[in-house]
Amino acid sequence: MPDRRSQRLAALVDSLTTAHLDGLLITSLPNIRYLTGFSGTNALLFVSARDACLVTDFRYQTQVHAEVGDLARIVVESQSLWSGLWQHLAQATHVEVAGFESANLVHRDFQRLVEAGARPRWRATMDLVEALRERKDSDEVALIRAAAAIATSALEATLPSIHAGMTELEVAGVLEKSLRDAGSEAFPFPSIVASGPRSALPHARSSSREMATGEFLLMDFGAAFGGYCADVTRTVVIGTASDEQRAVYQVVRQANELATAEVRAGLRGREADALARDYIERCGYGEGFGHGLGHGLGIEVHEAPRLARTADGLLSSGAVVTIEPGIYRPGWGGVRIEDDVHLAASGPELLTQFTHELLELT
Amino acid sequence: MPDRRSQRLAALVDSLTTAHLDGLLITSLPNIRYLTGFSGTNALLFVSARDACLVTDFRYQTQVHAEVGDLARIVVESQSLWSGLWQHLAQATHVEVAGFESANLVHRDFQRLVEAGARPRWRATMDLVEALRERKDSDEVALIRAAAAIATSALEATLPSIHAGMTELEVAGVLEKSLRDAGSEAFPFPSIVASGPRSALPHARSSSREMATGEFLLMDFGAAFGGYCADVTRTVVIGTASDEQRAVYQVVRQANELATAEVRAGLRGREADALARDYIERCGYGEGFGHGLGHGLGIEVHEAPRLARTADGLLSSGAVVTIEPGIYRPGWGGVRIEDDVHLAASGPELLTQFTHELLELT
Repeated sequence: MPDRRSQRLAALVDSLTTAHLDGLLITSLPNIRYLTGFSGTNALLFVSARDACLVTDFRYQTQVHAEVGDLARIVVESQSLWSGLWQHLAQATHVEVAGFESANLVHRDFQRLVEAGARPRWRATMDLVEALRERKDSDEVALIRAAAAIATSALEATLPSIHAGMTELEVAGVLEKSLRDAGSEAFPFPSIVASGPRSALPHARSSSREMATGEFLLMDFGAAFGGYCADVTRTVVIGTASDEQRAVYQVVRQANELATAEVRAGLRGREADALARDYIERCGYGEGFGHGLGHGLGIEVHEAPRLARTADGLLSSGAVVTIEPGIYRPGWGGVRIEDDVHLAASGPELLTQFTHELLELT
Repeated sequence: MPDRRSQRLAALVDSLTTAHLDGLLITSLPNIRYLTGFSGTNALLFVSARDACLVTDFRYQTQVHAEVGDLARIVVESQSLWSGLWQHLAQATHVEVAGFESANLVHRDFQRLVEAGARPRWRATMDLVEALRERKDSDEVALIRAAAAIATSALEATLPSIHAGMTELEVAGVLEKSLRDAGSEAFPFPSIVASGPRSALPHARSSSREMATGEFLLMDFGAAFGGYCADVTRTVVIGTASDEQRAVYQVVRQANELATAEVRAGLRGREADALARDYIERCGYGEGFGHGLGHGLGIEVHEAPRLARTADGLLSSGAVVTIEPGIYRPGWGGVRIEDDVHLAASGPELLTQFTHELLELT
């Protein structure tokens, strides 16, 4: 069976042909990881129909050969990656017109291309590799499923330790230790542990605030396995929930379950968003849902596609997306329930298996 | 007493005058945090001699006013930050020539500037804010010292739990929980917990490898407090050290202590690097020290200045730098001992107080 990475490189070469490009300079590290398996933090990749060349630095000498093998020509530079690239391009005489990643190249490095000489001629491109990454293959879905299992089992292990009087940072510590014990190889984003009124901030971090009985506790956290991410949110109550907390929670839960059951490839991002938003609006909480329904998930915790009011793109078959409706009331608190869903050909497949019941931690 | 941030904005305006610029577009989030205190993840800042304008999105409506106050004009955009910027610039008729941050602006956004019209004329700049950030004021040093105290107390709390048979990920979990319990508000970089032969990889992460008696265990980790980072490495032995482990360790320890005692403002980065490197080379281990001696530390865990063989810049008074010599032997293991040092006018001030003795965990 051909290596998945060879398939991905071949698909990229097809995209280049369509775009009338002889090659592509790839400066996004997640794109480089997707295409070659290299997980270091400093690299350039040049792909043409004839070959691929990966340039990295001496710190990754051992790792780059182990991870990439003979999939690409490997150049290890002691000073600047760019000198390795120029040497490769000097030999790649078949490359007349080459693309670069406009959203992943800073101006300073763009200037290097401009100043490097007459060949190749450079063209800005957008999302050539990102579009391939949106359609996950079965190996990728299996890794996200494994990351999701780590995330949910860590949450399961954390809940019994949570009690009033702990700080949000202490809860984060227990949760993150449980993630490590379950095998998470990284934290894809800073854990959000937000209690009481702070649960109303959609982008809170974790603070030294002490939690009190009767408050919401919102936990939004990730796990990583084999280079792929999961992203989960659950909101619980410390002690016994009030009727108002219960009412808001049920609306968010229902919105999550409606969208999770109905989301599928072929919808536009805004149509997917509406699956949850229309329900929340009908319940009278529309103003409290101030962000999009979700985002793609894979090597990065935010990648294509977007599920939001302003997202016109079609959801691709094979994408993995988050479904994360929320209702937030400044000063009072907020609820978000987030799951990860694979848009399989047969319909939506839930990857994060964890109860939606409102948990009251007593 | 004037707000530190007002002082920083005034210093930046001086730099702009020297560079013949009427204003500067700042797209680096750490630079925006330094100048305004805003800690969100989506913002643009425009600074001129007359005023400053911060544009962010609706998610940060509450937070941006709390963090920035009336230091800058605040614009909250529901769609694109760029439309907020264009509106501000349309009114800022005194701005004829403006800079942008060449190392912090991707090509796609550079194109927006090119296409936006005739005024202002845009000029690439490098490191205008970064140069200010290199000289820490006493408030900043106090925050790094607090982060360093969190890091060292977390290490102290972790050591008794470590034993043969644990995985590196499990050790990372205990360490990271201790960091949270001690009040670390973030993990500035992925913790490196590397045992046995993996300790020879200068950029290992943490893996599911089980540690065995007689092996090195290298822990390189960070803490964050008030937006500032600490960065610490210690290497211990699981069980009893061999003579060879002891010998390598003592060379690294001596190199660390020599450099920590002698590093000061006014040295070139390569002269600082040589304080440790010359000693390691004299001991016959020069080939095993394959990276630079250290880097600046502050809002980012890697910032100016660089301490390396190829670094010609002068170290600024007030900088905080890491001193992290190491010796690595592929297949055998490695030792690194890293401290954070403030280059005070009176000489080097050690911020990370933690023993350099070789700890044997039995």
